[in-house]
Amino acid sequence: MQAAQHRIEDWRTFSADATIAAATLGDAAVEVEWSDARRSPFHFDWLRDNCACAACVHALTREQVFEIADARADLSARVVHVDRDGALHVEWNDGHRSAWSPGWLRTHAYDDVSRAERHAAHGPHVWLGDDAAALGVFAWRDLMDDDGALHAWLGALQRTGLTLVEGVPAERGRVADVARRVGLIRESNFGVLFDVESKPRPDSNAYTSLNLPPHTDLPTRELQPGVQFLHCLANDATGGDSVFIDGFALADALRRERPADFERLVSTPFEFWNKSAHSDYRCSAPVIGLDARGNVSEVRVANFLRGPLDAPADAVAAVYRAYRRFLVLAREPRFRVQRRLRAGDMWAFDNRRVLHARTEFDPATGRRHLQGCYVDRDELLSRWRVLSRTLGAVAAPR
Amino acid sequence: MQAAQHRIEDWRTFSADATIAAATLGDAAVEVEWSDARRSPFHFDWLRDNCACAACVHALTREQVFEIADARADLSARVVHVDRDGALHVEWNDGHRSAWSPGWLRTHAYDDVSRAERHAAHGPHVWLGDDAAALGVFAWRDLMDDDGALHAWLGALQRTGLTLVEGVPAERGRVADVARRVGLIRESNFGVLFDVESKPRPDSNAYTSLNLPPHTDLPTRELQPGVQFLHCLANDATGGDSVFIDGFALADALRRERPADFERLVSTPFEFWNKSAHSDYRCSAPVIGLDARGNVSEVRVANFLRGPLDAPADAVAAVYRAYRRFLVLAREPRFRVQRRLRAGDMWAFDNRRVLHARTEFDPATGRRHLQGCYVDRDELLSRWRVLSRTLGAVAAPR
Repeated sequence: MQAAQHRIEDWRTFSADATIAAATLGDAAVEVEWSDARRSPFHFDWLRDNCACAACVHALTREQVFEIADARADLSARVVHVDRDGALHVEWNDGHRSAWSPGWLRTHAYDDVSRAERHAAHGPHVWLGDDAAALGVFAWRDLMDDDGALHAWLGALQRTGLTLVEGVPAERGRVADVARRVGLIRESNFGVLFDVESKPRPDSNAYTSLNLPPHTDLPTRELQPGVQFLHCLANDATGGDSVFIDGFALADALRRERPADFERLVSTPFEFWNKSAHSDYRCSAPVIGLDARGNVSEVRVANFLRGPLDAPADAVAAVYRAYRRFLVLAREPRFRVQRRLRAGDMWAFDNRRVLHARTEFDPATGRRHLQGCYVDRDELLSRWRVLSRTLGAVAAPR
Repeated sequence: MQAAQHRIEDWRTFSADATIAAATLGDAAVEVEWSDARRSPFHFDWLRDNCACAACVHALTREQVFEIADARADLSARVVHVDRDGALHVEWNDGHRSAWSPGWLRTHAYDDVSRAERHAAHGPHVWLGDDAAALGVFAWRDLMDDDGALHAWLGALQRTGLTLVEGVPAERGRVADVARRVGLIRESNFGVLFDVESKPRPDSNAYTSLNLPPHTDLPTRELQPGVQFLHCLANDATGGDSVFIDGFALADALRRERPADFERLVSTPFEFWNKSAHSDYRCSAPVIGLDARGNVSEVRVANFLRGPLDAPADAVAAVYRAYRRFLVLAREPRFRVQRRLRAGDMWAFDNRRVLHARTEFDPATGRRHLQGCYVDRDELLSRWRVLSRTLGAVAAPR
């Protein structure tokens, strides 16, 4: 019954690998000892805030109605006990009663061991050019028809940031069908879908036949698009090979080999500007972004989309030294996966992690036409979590 | 001629309030002394990186082709001079030549005085409930027909984060017409447009008749929507008043009155979860976000859209203390602007800054129907910059 109560709150089910061996009432928290000897404190406010009873959580929306600010300032548990199903029950000093299943508590425990376990489960698999063989290759038909294949693809995309989908019909608009299997397409000033080809009046270097150095798309936006899809419709010109680089590998190498340069690129906002007659997008952000735990969470690079650096005068020389080294690093063969796209290939990659580049091509020798679109990381992760739920996947959705 | 060269790079024009009095060649930088005695260093790499000649910048895309990593490591200026039009010329030790207009250089100078001047120009106007009279009210017809009015509205929206548009026809879809005057609409799982009304099977507390505490929309996304538009089509029910709070004022008050709590809410990622049968959006981010300079750049609050806090055990009690105080602060009348929407009113507000709330209403007493949509800050700022350019506005676009 308690388990059911928590499914109302979360839509997931929680298996209890461990059971509650003992629950004791401390000064500020309920101390749980698990059957595997792990110990987890659950502070009073935390428990009360996670009460999933019908008075605290709306039955249909499953969103909280209660606010912790409405609990008395000296909130404490008066009685604690574990029932025959293993659920933890608390009666509060204001008379309210709450209960939690052991599986839910174990999944959300925040003792050091539980947190380390939870956070370790989702690290990225960083790769170099030589690891290209290990990158995931998926068949278009499977992804469109089979939720299991879709789930596997999205898992690979999260881990490595780069996957190839083969056999996508080489027709306009097909890339959108694939992207919509993941989630909402993110529109930009270049359209819902964009066509990468040499154009007579280009408004981006991407739409010329020039060499394009390694870059992320739309660094000029606060949130760079999370996933980029690039679908090859034709590639008959001489030149125009595609290059991919794991930006996390670049950042790791810089951190190891040139820690002072890494620090500069983490702490210095660069100016990214994309100006045209009808738009003027600008963003000020570092080349290497860290998450709250200090892990690299994104890179932001497009040499051709920068505005003048706006750093303190006494830092400018050091910032340029660091930026030069990053650019040189990105040219080293050890990081590069180079491929020639064939009509029907579709690359899907984490645009905030994987830099892409292309070599110069000669538009007089044949047609080169890619069609692309963007989907944000939020959409990818939401889809993956829902599939994990419905497929009963073993891995805990993050 | 130099001025024209820089318009190619930027689409803006730069007036030279000050002229270059002297340019001298230092060890690492060209030192410019202006006619008003300000002194600006321009480091060699910075100047070379901003060369706007036809070999360095693509003539049509106006994007850089040159990469600073291709300049020699010991790059330095060999000759410096100021021409009869006041432009700065440099001949480099590799033979390349560059030139910059004085207006462009002055606009992008990074000496301490120039940086402070540039950054001070764009601070927000923070407000309390008593300041409500100073908030901008705009007429729908003007915004739709007149780019000058549109520009003024977008300026006010940037400064105060909250504006009222009156006289929008009370018809479905009209809110989208207004939003598209600003930029691309951002779709979510709730649609391109969303309908806020009491629904029989709600998938959000917003779609009930409940009291909704002060919140930002979609805190469950990495990037919360920047601007929210809420258009009132009908408001005939008893109750259901709207409340707005400047989240920057809340953050300022907390910083002053409870600095330790402010620190907790800046440094602790909270879990924001929006789960349903078909989606599962989650984001881990602090309640108060700072920009690279330590200024408050966003708040992220929706009590009913949180997952279990995942903080170190020894921090949990202090985090809850801080969060309780923030919630209590947000209930204080001094911060609140309360309004009853009339059919035809449309509020536009910075959803990452201004919290909105509504009081409970009785759906049996009449219809209450709002229609809304989102546009990101990137779109607002791009539109405002282009208008600033074309209108020749006095204020320098940021």
